[in-house]
Amino acid sequence: MPFEKEKLTNEELVELKALSRLAKGDILTMTRLAGTGHPGGSISSLDAYLVLFSYAKLSEEPRDRVIISHGHTSPGVYAALARLGHMPADEVTAFFRKGGSPFEGHVVKGIPFIDWSTGNLGQGLSAGCGFAIASKIKKEDARVYVFMGDGEQQKGQLSEARRFARKYGLTNITALIDYNHLQISGSIDHVMPQNIIENYLSDGWKVVEINGHDYNEIYEAFRETRNSDNPVCILAHTVMGNGIPFMENKEKYHGNPLNEKEYKDALEALEMEDNFDFYKEKRKGKWTWKPSVYSETLNVDTGSPFTYANEDKLDNRSAFGKTLKDLGDINIGKGCTICTFDCDLAGSVKTGDFGSAYPDYFFQGGIQEHNTATIAGALSTTGILTFFADFGVFGIDETYNQARLNDINNTNLKLILTHVGLDVGPDGKTHQCIDYVGLSRNLFNFKTIVPCDPNQVDRAVRYVAGTKGNFLLATGRNRWPVISSDNGKPFFSDEYTFKYGSMDTVREGHDGAIITYGGMVVRAIKIREELAKKGIALKVINMSCVHETDNEVMEETLKQPYIFTYEDHNVFTGIAPVITGYLLQKGYRGRFESFGVRRYGVSGDTEEVYAVEGLDVESMAETLLKIMQ
Amino acid sequence: MPFEKEKLTNEELVELKALSRLAKGDILTMTRLAGTGHPGGSISSLDAYLVLFSYAKLSEEPRDRVIISHGHTSPGVYAALARLGHMPADEVTAFFRKGGSPFEGHVVKGIPFIDWSTGNLGQGLSAGCGFAIASKIKKEDARVYVFMGDGEQQKGQLSEARRFARKYGLTNITALIDYNHLQISGSIDHVMPQNIIENYLSDGWKVVEINGHDYNEIYEAFRETRNSDNPVCILAHTVMGNGIPFMENKEKYHGNPLNEKEYKDALEALEMEDNFDFYKEKRKGKWTWKPSVYSETLNVDTGSPFTYANEDKLDNRSAFGKTLKDLGDINIGKGCTICTFDCDLAGSVKTGDFGSAYPDYFFQGGIQEHNTATIAGALSTTGILTFFADFGVFGIDETYNQARLNDINNTNLKLILTHVGLDVGPDGKTHQCIDYVGLSRNLFNFKTIVPCDPNQVDRAVRYVAGTKGNFLLATGRNRWPVISSDNGKPFFSDEYTFKYGSMDTVREGHDGAIITYGGMVVRAIKIREELAKKGIALKVINMSCVHETDNEVMEETLKQPYIFTYEDHNVFTGIAPVITGYLLQKGYRGRFESFGVRRYGVSGDTEEVYAVEGLDVESMAETLLKIMQ
Repeated sequence: MPFEKEKLTNEELVELKALSRLAKGDILTMTRLAGTGHPGGSISSLDAYLVLFSYAKLSEEPRDRVIISHGHTSPGVYAALARLGHMPADEVTAFFRKGGSPFEGHVVKGIPFIDWSTGNLGQGLSAGCGFAIASKIKKEDARVYVFMGDGEQQKGQLSEARRFARKYGLTNITALIDYNHLQISGSIDHVMPQNIIENYLSDGWKVVEINGHDYNEIYEAFRETRNSDNPVCILAHTVMGNGIPFMENKEKYHGNPLNEKEYKDALEALEMEDNFDFYKEKRKGKWTWKPSVYSETLNVDTGSPFTYANEDKLDNRSAFGKTLKDLGDINIGKGCTICTFDCDLAGSVKTGDFGSAYPDYFFQGGIQEHNTATIAGALSTTGILTFFADFGVFGIDETYNQARLNDINNTNLKLILTHVGLDVGPDGKTHQCIDYVGLSRNLFNFKTIVPCDPNQVDRAVRYVAGTKGNFLLATGRNRWPVISSDNGKPFFSDEYTFKYGSMDTVREGHDGAIITYGGMVVRAIKIREELAKKGIALKVINMSCVHETDNEVMEETLKQPYIFTYEDHNVFTGIAPVITGYLLQKGYRGRFESFGVRRYGVSGDTEEVYAVEGLDVESMAETLLKIMQ
Repeated sequence: MPFEKEKLTNEELVELKALSRLAKGDILTMTRLAGTGHPGGSISSLDAYLVLFSYAKLSEEPRDRVIISHGHTSPGVYAALARLGHMPADEVTAFFRKGGSPFEGHVVKGIPFIDWSTGNLGQGLSAGCGFAIASKIKKEDARVYVFMGDGEQQKGQLSEARRFARKYGLTNITALIDYNHLQISGSIDHVMPQNIIENYLSDGWKVVEINGHDYNEIYEAFRETRNSDNPVCILAHTVMGNGIPFMENKEKYHGNPLNEKEYKDALEALEMEDNFDFYKEKRKGKWTWKPSVYSETLNVDTGSPFTYANEDKLDNRSAFGKTLKDLGDINIGKGCTICTFDCDLAGSVKTGDFGSAYPDYFFQGGIQEHNTATIAGALSTTGILTFFADFGVFGIDETYNQARLNDINNTNLKLILTHVGLDVGPDGKTHQCIDYVGLSRNLFNFKTIVPCDPNQVDRAVRYVAGTKGNFLLATGRNRWPVISSDNGKPFFSDEYTFKYGSMDTVREGHDGAIITYGGMVVRAIKIREELAKKGIALKVINMSCVHETDNEVMEETLKQPYIFTYEDHNVFTGIAPVITGYLLQKGYRGRFESFGVRRYGVSGDTEEVYAVEGLDVESMAETLLKIMQ
């Protein structure tokens, strides 16, 4: 059992002290060698790292999880792990921040016992909540340890995480703040005065104060918090640069390595040999140690698709809600757990049915999108299929950097944006998310899908549920008709299987092609009908995978004299640049025009908003006619 | 004097009550007519709106400022203003949320006494801090009133704003929380339990509890808070749907208009006539009322440019710091105030000299980027030239939605990102901001500039200082050489004037052209030198205005057999799509290739990181050679 005995023995204290001394030397050597890094906080956090990595349950399942939220203390983490035998000490020291090495400037997952890459302050406690939920759901006897800096406490996301942890009784979290009173610009009391203890207490947490360099106090604090009725925060009073007199309490050493003289003085204070030249030489070579990234496989039953007729009068977000509930029915309790996160919009994003049926797996995060996005991301890496549904403006605009850190962590998140585009209508410009395609285009590990009717939504949602990786799937707010084939049957039904990267030719034509997605597909069909009256046959292509061109469909389309993109999205960052890139490469000789949003939208009925922007069926038909006639 | 007398008279109480009753009817009519909107919170906030709009100093300068952070209570704002004679009551009611009308779903600036468009919860208190700073700097006897919802209190950005207000003694802020205990999904105590009072107290605020429907209590609270030594929060206990019995305390009415029967019942409860058909008819017409947006003009002296030689060994961010300090010296105390905001990175973003010289105009926001971004945006609209300098990942990735709301508000912010690209190096992927060009491309009112050497930085910074509007200017972290002309003189010196949208041909060539920006320009010149050894003459174009093509330069470039883009940025969202769009339109017949970042970067020296990505000079020269030979 972790932290089993009441107290550390004298031998253990002596050993920890010895390891700490050596690790401090490693920290100073690696940062000086790299010429960059954060020695100050690495040293103030070090003693807590040593105790945790010595006594927590890290090597046997179910194991405790560790989040280093102030990821810049990586030298402290590496040195502690190396001195405890979990990483090769010489490689860690020699190759810190060397290009391509696993010993990165900020802690990444794959380092022993570390399951979350960090670097952006303020997100770690939220990630910890994600792992804590996983542990509770799996009924594991395991804890989550979240280490944080004190300057970091200024980030607002932490207050959101505290409230969430308290609400959901995540008593299996132990947070520890390295309270060295310094941040880059100086004293935390000067940079941004904060009542850290009162902040935690006001959100219903318990706070324990200890000396962060006293191994007994650290050990006892970790031991006692294992039986707390509240989430606990250990406020560890520490000294930046502890043990090297000239470094102590100097903010200068937050982010600056020592110079040669300082380094020699420090080694002397630590009574350590100077092996700098050895490491310098070694750094010219190559490391051998490799991180091993923990990855859970999911066993999702994606069920059988639902097919809707137009008479079902279903909007796309409701189609998502129905498929989600179906996935719950098929999977929960039968091999794969599914969790869904909401930010006070369940009624609108249609996760309510799932929530009512599976209250234990439905998490109401409140109006705390930053926290919720990170929790969902972290949870999604634990073998639990995780959905986070929100309005576009909250689910990606407000939380872009949380999505980005999720992406860097190769999470397995299914992000559903229900309200996107000018389609949002009367709520106005702040709520009209017209940049989601452009934003997600920056996230290398996110695939983005915008289905065009309830049948495609159903199939795409099942696809993302069954496919590993991050997906952003947008539904739109309004109800759009079911797309039918020329024969009147639903286009996306029996013969159709969703395949990522495929484009769908929903209407044939030879006088030009219009490429579109989401709610504009049905409009494009109407535009086609208008043009048909003038004897023009417009091909209509649905590009639901908005970042991908489908070679087969596109090769055929190159024969068209006109190609248009038409989207309810910022015209500069949607599908237009994807298509222009393709057409340029292929040497397309026809005329290309892009239609999309060129200013923030007005507040009104969707049709009114489109009309102001010239994107309604009538305006578009007129515009295309002028071009094509 | 506002709130001069101690108590309201009986006549005033009767009048307020009468106005409230009528305004409630307006709220219910306009939301029902629009078929959308938020009647519940509009009614619970209404009485406070009526008191404030009646007694605050809103029409004479220096005037009090009002922020409606929970902008969805717009019907309450419009009805209160209309019934007090500041807007035409019939138009407000008839045209609420009608496409293109000024009576938008969320409150926008230009509505009487409203200086900030809102809609995204949690940002209003920060905007209030911005206006409060402006008021303090101008030594105005005026207050800032920030109205907020109670569910909104869950947003972490509020804790950041509270600490900032406390640190800077912004005792001229009065916040008011409409404490109706309900949010969309139900009771706030159920959705996300929160100790609102303790949260405010823990951040050093004063809290005053009142009955939010008692005019005397509201009046007295507003009156007393004018003389507080702390920022004050009035917690106004209210009832959602107050005064209409069947609506009271029902979350259903948060975001849903009444149906016909409910509407008739409500009018009966309010003892009001049913004029619905009149408004319905009127809605078919057009409004006449126009908002008047307050706009300050700045009188900035942009001084004389500094010219640096290569021997000055200056990096671009230091060049920014020097120009900023110079702008301070020229302008502060002489016609134009300049303020600069930092988030604990002044040493790295080089605003320290300005800060030391002008401590009263330098604001240290701590590690609270969301709050700082919004404050800076709001302040920038008050006739004060405002700079916010930060690392790219914090200044735009983390705060994208704050930048977006600033943009919607047509702010005049000068956002300086010092650390962008893989150029950031050893701090690794979380800190390598390789999406800033793509993100800002979504913001219609932001212009983005990435100068390539200290001389261009100086001139570009002076340009953005002297030009109204939002600018994002990125400098990069490392030192790059001064770009010289073929004659050895600095390229960006005497004869050069920065002009937004211009491209600079820094090296001529006829075998192909490489278009690049920032720190890659000097690399492109080196690549050119490598290719020259093989007899290939590569033209090098600096595209510092990354969203714009310069027709003159580009027309000339179309003659090249090869055109390449080369950027330290996500290859999908940087300049490549801008150039491909242009080339496709122009029917370019040569070969085009884009080079940029295609995965998250490693942690290492910048050169190592580039090499891994194939973007270093050697790899690039090799690749281009293969293509061009």
